[in-house]
Amino acid sequence: MNEWSLPETELFDRIRSSLDEDVDAVLVTVIDVEGSAYRRPGAKMLIRPDGGAGSITAGCLEDEVKDLATDVLDAGTARVETWDLTGDDDVWGMGVGCNGVITVLLEPLTDDYTPVVDARNRGDPVAVATVVDGDLPIATRGYYAAGEFDGDLPIWVCEEIRQATERLLADGGSDLLTVSRGSDGDATGTEEASVDVFVNGIRPPPEVVVFGSGHDVRPVVELATLVDFRVTVVAFRGGHIDDDRLAGADEVISASPHEVADLREWDGDTYAVVMTHNFVDDRITIDVLLETPVPYLGLMGPRKRFAEMREAFAAEGRTFTDAELERIYTPIGVNLGGDSPYQIAYSIVAELLAVANDRDPCHLTDRAGPIHDRVEGESS
Amino acid sequence: MNEWSLPETELFDRIRSSLDEDVDAVLVTVIDVEGSAYRRPGAKMLIRPDGGAGSITAGCLEDEVKDLATDVLDAGTARVETWDLTGDDDVWGMGVGCNGVITVLLEPLTDDYTPVVDARNRGDPVAVATVVDGDLPIATRGYYAAGEFDGDLPIWVCEEIRQATERLLADGGSDLLTVSRGSDGDATGTEEASVDVFVNGIRPPPEVVVFGSGHDVRPVVELATLVDFRVTVVAFRGGHIDDDRLAGADEVISASPHEVADLREWDGDTYAVVMTHNFVDDRITIDVLLETPVPYLGLMGPRKRFAEMREAFAAEGRTFTDAELERIYTPIGVNLGGDSPYQIAYSIVAELLAVANDRDPCHLTDRAGPIHDRVEGESS
Repeated sequence: MNEWSLPETELFDRIRSSLDEDVDAVLVTVIDVEGSAYRRPGAKMLIRPDGGAGSITAGCLEDEVKDLATDVLDAGTARVETWDLTGDDDVWGMGVGCNGVITVLLEPLTDDYTPVVDARNRGDPVAVATVVDGDLPIATRGYYAAGEFDGDLPIWVCEEIRQATERLLADGGSDLLTVSRGSDGDATGTEEASVDVFVNGIRPPPEVVVFGSGHDVRPVVELATLVDFRVTVVAFRGGHIDDDRLAGADEVISASPHEVADLREWDGDTYAVVMTHNFVDDRITIDVLLETPVPYLGLMGPRKRFAEMREAFAAEGRTFTDAELERIYTPIGVNLGGDSPYQIAYSIVAELLAVANDRDPCHLTDRAGPIHDRVEGESS
Repeated sequence: MNEWSLPETELFDRIRSSLDEDVDAVLVTVIDVEGSAYRRPGAKMLIRPDGGAGSITAGCLEDEVKDLATDVLDAGTARVETWDLTGDDDVWGMGVGCNGVITVLLEPLTDDYTPVVDARNRGDPVAVATVVDGDLPIATRGYYAAGEFDGDLPIWVCEEIRQATERLLADGGSDLLTVSRGSDGDATGTEEASVDVFVNGIRPPPEVVVFGSGHDVRPVVELATLVDFRVTVVAFRGGHIDDDRLAGADEVISASPHEVADLREWDGDTYAVVMTHNFVDDRITIDVLLETPVPYLGLMGPRKRFAEMREAFAAEGRTFTDAELERIYTPIGVNLGGDSPYQIAYSIVAELLAVANDRDPCHLTDRAGPIHDRVEGESS
């Protein structure tokens, strides 16, 4: 098993099967980063004697981490390790370095991680709070879901981290928190204590629902799956759906357009791609989805086609609020050019990523500002 | 063989092998589009008795085209076919339609297409000029490369289309041209004639050269290949290169940074991704590439890292012109968010597409203008 880059859902599948099959494994989690690093806190890797899955750096640390994992398995106890990857370039001109200082937690994978895997499989958000330093044993763990803590963390720690945990759970973010309590003198004998707790908000992946059954659906499904979307395909009119067409889709549904509202739970983490190539079906789908919380409705076709839809709606007395119109993206996709099936799909999935991550899809170099500012040492 | 969506390079491989193996095949080319359609003029599909490769629509015409292809093979002659896909929605409310009017040329694949395949394999641009209507037999063909015509087109036609053909070859575009000549009375007996000629400029795919050997190279190679880039990987310091790591790369080169200038022909159709994770190697690579015509140097890492590079350069007396700085994109990639290996690679390849296609990577819906304008029939 050597799968350095795989979607998080598949990593959790590997964790699940390691637990089910009782295979020795070490779970490695990035808990802190200073400066820049390839992955962010919360990134995970699973290491087993037969290989690894997932990644925590671009490759510069993986061998060292694997060696440490062997030690962790042998010792049976968790440990925290920090690597300073910022090199001192000037001294030797060697320039080695991935940048940044990265701290990871390595822990034997045990059954006490099962509630996390279960929650994610059910599609329920769960925050994992793990002691990484201080006055409690490393890897002492609590779970937070639906407003409640469970697990082995002392109540006082849970109360100290509750607010931050709720926020990290909502964002799907991670943070390293230091919490402490004072001594209460002789009252109950409570001692001073301080712990560092890594809180990892784990949310189920965002979902994409693709409405269509043409050949052009498959590249969209394939690319969306590679970048960690859960993908459902909805085909109308008994459209030709076969496994070959939809490699990778998590679910394929045959339905009629008027059934769309009842097909599933529609929420704010679901993004719709409307590409049936049928004017009436697209129109009904847009109409129905606007009544749900789905924040993004990407409609394939030129702007003119949507204008014709609005005329058809207007003839029935159906008008759109500005808020509704803002949810509709048409023509669908980011402006990348290209007209091959994969290039069109690439543009669509790029837009899905940008919207799901709340980003404006400009060049990152432009976002960082002008590159032309003089630096010290350059003559004017 | 059923490969509806495959990179153009692979389609040409299928054409090549059909010719080599003397397999009956029909080449289908989109020659004209009115309104909007899924593919543009020049899009190709190859149909054989054992299946098809490539696509000309999103799926709505492929079956009809396959039936016609059978007729074309039986008759042994080319034909032109037009489909009006704009449906009359109001009458029946059926709303069928992919939009647009699409015209295709279907022709038996014969050895006279070999020069095209050969040119593309060599990486040489070639324009193919094919008669599709008028006073010459359909599929009469000429080729244009390096300023010269060859093939079966009469000289007078070549001269009439020369200027447009040179332009289409430079752009890699396609167009349907009507050319004619008048009668010259009794002088040489030349008669009036008019022909429609489809000119298809075929350029080799743009190239991406990825400098790096970390685990993170493979997702970049994989995604770039899907969207029709030719991909070369250059690994320094004997970096661990193995097939598994680089699935899909067209070429893998081991070198040292100072050898970069001589590694290959560097031109304006080549885009560089610099991701060695080694400060010195990245720096040398940038320095060397700036001396070549490569228009895009994407540098992985935060802006600060490049600022440090410039300080190091300045200490050696090397400064950058504004023109040089404009070629450097750092941080690399389009702002899509996400931090998994495939999401990072997705952002990089999105930028490569945008730059290669000379596009500003905004939402297409924003580029089409405000969606809020009132349409006729909506009450204010």
